[in-house]
Order: sequence, then C-alpha cells, then structure tokens
Amino acid sequence: MSILNIFRSSKKNTASIAKERLQIIVAHERNQRSGPDYLPILQKELIDVIAKYVKIDRDQVKVELDQQDDCSVLELNIMLPERESNTETA
Amino acid sequence: MSILNIFRSSKKNTASIAKERLQIIVAHERNQRSGPDYLPILQKELIDVIAKYVKIDRDQVKVELDQQDDCSVLELNIMLPERESNTETA
Repeated sequence: MSILNIFRSSKKNTASIAKERLQIIVAHERNQRSGPDYLPILQKELIDVIAKYVKIDRDQVKVELDQQDDCSVLELNIMLPERESNTETA
Repeated sequence: MSILNIFRSSKKNTASIAKERLQIIVAHERNQRSGPDYLPILQKELIDVIAKYVKIDRDQVKVELDQQDDCSVLELNIMLPERESNTETA
C-alpha cells in the first residue's frame, strides 16, 4: 500500500503545473475479514459532500480501491478545475 | 506532515488490540494560499456520510487539521465500536 507515496509523488507534479488537487482517503481496518464492503458505494456520497464546498469536475476524479486482508482503502484523487478569478487575464 | 506514518504506526496497535478503525484523510493542495477553508466544516458532513454505513461512536472520533503553506489536511481517526455479534460470548 502506498497511500502517502501517491500523495507525495503527485505533490511535486501538481506544484510544477500549478493545479489544485484534492485527495480523499478512507481506510477501514478490520480485525475480521468479514463485513460488508461499503467503500465503493461511499465514494459517490463523499464526492457529493465535497462538491458542496469545492467545484469539482467529475471527469477529473480518479478512484482507486485497494483491498487487503484486514484493510480496505478507498482513494479519490481529484484534479480541481482552475478558478475563473485567478486564470490569466491577458 | 506524516499522513501515512500515523496510519502505519496505528495499524500495529490496532492489530494487537483487535479493534476496528476507520481513517479518513482529506488533503487539499492549492497553488495559491487563498481560498476559503472548508475542511473544518466538512468534517461533520463526512462523518454523517460514513455513519450511514458503519456504526460510529462519535466520542471516538479524533480530528486533526493541519494547515501548511499550500496544503490543508483534515484527518479523522475513528475507533469503531465492537460488533455485538463478534464479542466474546463467555
């Protein structure tokens, strides 16, 4: 699993291209391997909540779901659209 | 910032005490330092969404908010209550 690796490596890239980025990670660690896996369902609802506060282009949402023995990790990487107020004004 | 460190170090602990744990991280990386900071407001809504799927004891939610120059990180660490069906039955 490389949660922070992804975060950190992407950080450099986004700094250089000056984009805004949002990353959401939900990790559920279980002591049993049973249990319903709600993470795939959760992703849409999380995006809906975030979209109340940040303008999101849903085509720019990358979803990764990693399941290991005792841990499920949902990762959403969202490239945010540039803000109108701060783009170059020729 | 030590997002994954927290996750990894806690992982060992939780394994040994056999608790379930949920971690939610929202990281917003900006190219400007401006912008409204919605992360503190977001935390309640995120917990509300998660609570639809997982039984959460709201007293067991630890919130950390880390603000750096170009990155805001909201971290929620939730210890999940033990499941009734799987606790020791004498």
